[in-house]
Amino acid sequence: MKKIYARRLARVRLRLRRLKLDGLLVTHEANVRYLSGFTGDSSVLVITPADALFVTDSRYAEQAGAECGGWTVLIRRKGMIELIARRVSRLGVGRLGVEAGVITLGSAERLREALGKAEMVSTSGVVAELRQVKDRTEIEAIEACVGAAEQCIERIRSYLVPGIRERDIAAEMEYFVRGLGFEGMAFPTIVAFGARGSLPHARATTRRLKPGEAILIDWGVAGGGYVCDLTRVFFHHKIPGRLGRIYRTVLEAQRRAIRAVRPGITAGKVDGAARRHIAKAGFGRRFGHALGHGIGIEVHEGPTIGPSTKTVLKRGMVFTVEPGVYVPGVGGVRIEDDVLVTADGARVLTGAPKRLRDLVL
Amino acid sequence: MKKIYARRLARVRLRLRRLKLDGLLVTHEANVRYLSGFTGDSSVLVITPADALFVTDSRYAEQAGAECGGWTVLIRRKGMIELIARRVSRLGVGRLGVEAGVITLGSAERLREALGKAEMVSTSGVVAELRQVKDRTEIEAIEACVGAAEQCIERIRSYLVPGIRERDIAAEMEYFVRGLGFEGMAFPTIVAFGARGSLPHARATTRRLKPGEAILIDWGVAGGGYVCDLTRVFFHHKIPGRLGRIYRTVLEAQRRAIRAVRPGITAGKVDGAARRHIAKAGFGRRFGHALGHGIGIEVHEGPTIGPSTKTVLKRGMVFTVEPGVYVPGVGGVRIEDDVLVTADGARVLTGAPKRLRDLVL
Repeated sequence: MKKIYARRLARVRLRLRRLKLDGLLVTHEANVRYLSGFTGDSSVLVITPADALFVTDSRYAEQAGAECGGWTVLIRRKGMIELIARRVSRLGVGRLGVEAGVITLGSAERLREALGKAEMVSTSGVVAELRQVKDRTEIEAIEACVGAAEQCIERIRSYLVPGIRERDIAAEMEYFVRGLGFEGMAFPTIVAFGARGSLPHARATTRRLKPGEAILIDWGVAGGGYVCDLTRVFFHHKIPGRLGRIYRTVLEAQRRAIRAVRPGITAGKVDGAARRHIAKAGFGRRFGHALGHGIGIEVHEGPTIGPSTKTVLKRGMVFTVEPGVYVPGVGGVRIEDDVLVTADGARVLTGAPKRLRDLVL
Repeated sequence: MKKIYARRLARVRLRLRRLKLDGLLVTHEANVRYLSGFTGDSSVLVITPADALFVTDSRYAEQAGAECGGWTVLIRRKGMIELIARRVSRLGVGRLGVEAGVITLGSAERLREALGKAEMVSTSGVVAELRQVKDRTEIEAIEACVGAAEQCIERIRSYLVPGIRERDIAAEMEYFVRGLGFEGMAFPTIVAFGARGSLPHARATTRRLKPGEAILIDWGVAGGGYVCDLTRVFFHHKIPGRLGRIYRTVLEAQRRAIRAVRPGITAGKVDGAARRHIAKAGFGRRFGHALGHGIGIEVHEGPTIGPSTKTVLKRGMVFTVEPGVYVPGVGGVRIEDDVLVTADGARVLTGAPKRLRDLVL
């Protein structure tokens, strides 16, 4: 087993001991990848103090052998659940942890029955908490995605002309990113013109850009098993009405939040640094979501950076800082960057221009 | 409520009565869309004999109001589970069905606790079984996707020249489909050159096409909430070694399966019609997957068309017919079309050329 996966596995086993579990069934695809390096799907892990089982089907036999050195690869013929239960009982597992936030009720019921005497125990966050702290190779993978995302937005600027459709922009971006050799976008790109910017989860539509409108783009790149996540707002020729003041408020709120980031502080305090500034400017009710979320293998993972989050930040955590102000009928501004917690503060991984004067086309 | 959704809701209520349930919690996104018309996410339905509740969060308040006429839209402030439990108890529901194949163990545990006296009952397939039979508007939506998919493959033929990478082809296809105004691909396009065609789930890589190689493309288009799913194999200049005989075997197997399709026959018999022919030709062990799967809102839905599937085909079902023969080290052939069960047989919805002579570039 490669050193990095052996280290991660050791950490999981340590947690199992603390939870008084004899084994853990890992069914979340991102967790399977994190622990084993496997890049396919439809596969699960069974981890005990002494064993590391990789269970898949015949389609992935060859790939699992190549990617998952050190794991005992088992190819299921029929039911996955039944194979797991048989193995678990053979290994003498008394208490088997399952990922309660991932396994379905139906699978859990079948597993519980198949396990017989062994007890099925709900767990949450056993692997997810480890994943919050990134190692060097993970940070490099995220930085590679950031590089592509920034080339992509730089290139798309010239497309932002009246008449273009939101969907055209999303399509051009994906096409460009794939041309760079990346997997694609990390999530469906959000492109919102004008007042649609006030919908925090607007999808790209067939709406066409009108002269003088604002353009909100929320995009990320996926590659090498990792992702990034950014948002920028552009303005065609002029900055419409109240959006200039809103932009400066959001940018300053983001600056304050990033300045607050350091190991030892709670996520709630970082959120508060941005939220207080937005409230003081009179937009408190217009910032309805959390300040940020972890990124890594998934676009949304731990830690959440929200108003009441008690998570204590640690060196190596990577998350978005994305304050926003949304005024229905007018538009919205969100500025989103990806931040790494360093030994004594924060390093902003994303460098796409965000001074207001750089964003007027 | 629009007539089509009212009709679907009535069918669900009929099933609830048969299952002796007082209510059903619908959490599967595709089922939420099917029953309510809602195109967003993070929303669930609670259906009782007299009530139709749509539960979402503030982000989707406006959209739910616009899309879900006839449903009582509830905006959750905090926990979804707690809101559902309160409502359910207020409505006097004694037995609440949940979708056991979708709801997570963790959510189910919290719901069971919050429900108090009311009983939580695992169900499976209540909505999925209804979805197997398509109505006219659904068939039209699938046909629209097929139209785009066929334009797309016709156009991509000219790109299939030595030196192009598998990923380039996938990227061009997605770009083209979006340009037609469709959402995008229904799943990550499979492009496999040469011997990689023997991996039934190969993703597109950076491998470059060599002269004389076979090119397997498995693609689908998503639009209007529906999808299609096709596979074709092309040959650059010549048909390598054994692949010609394999191709003819697979094509004839597919023809036999399609000819077997009619209301009243079991899915297993349709699978058998193809499988027997492939076995007779000596490739029985090289056809390792089911013959097909339903398509609709999702790329994989009911009915499964497998060797032992007892599902009786009904008029209006739409599924893929995709026999394949895979020889490691040599390559693979899969031919996949989408088929609608009609009153007295089958209508093939997909018409992309598949005679061997049309596929040599």
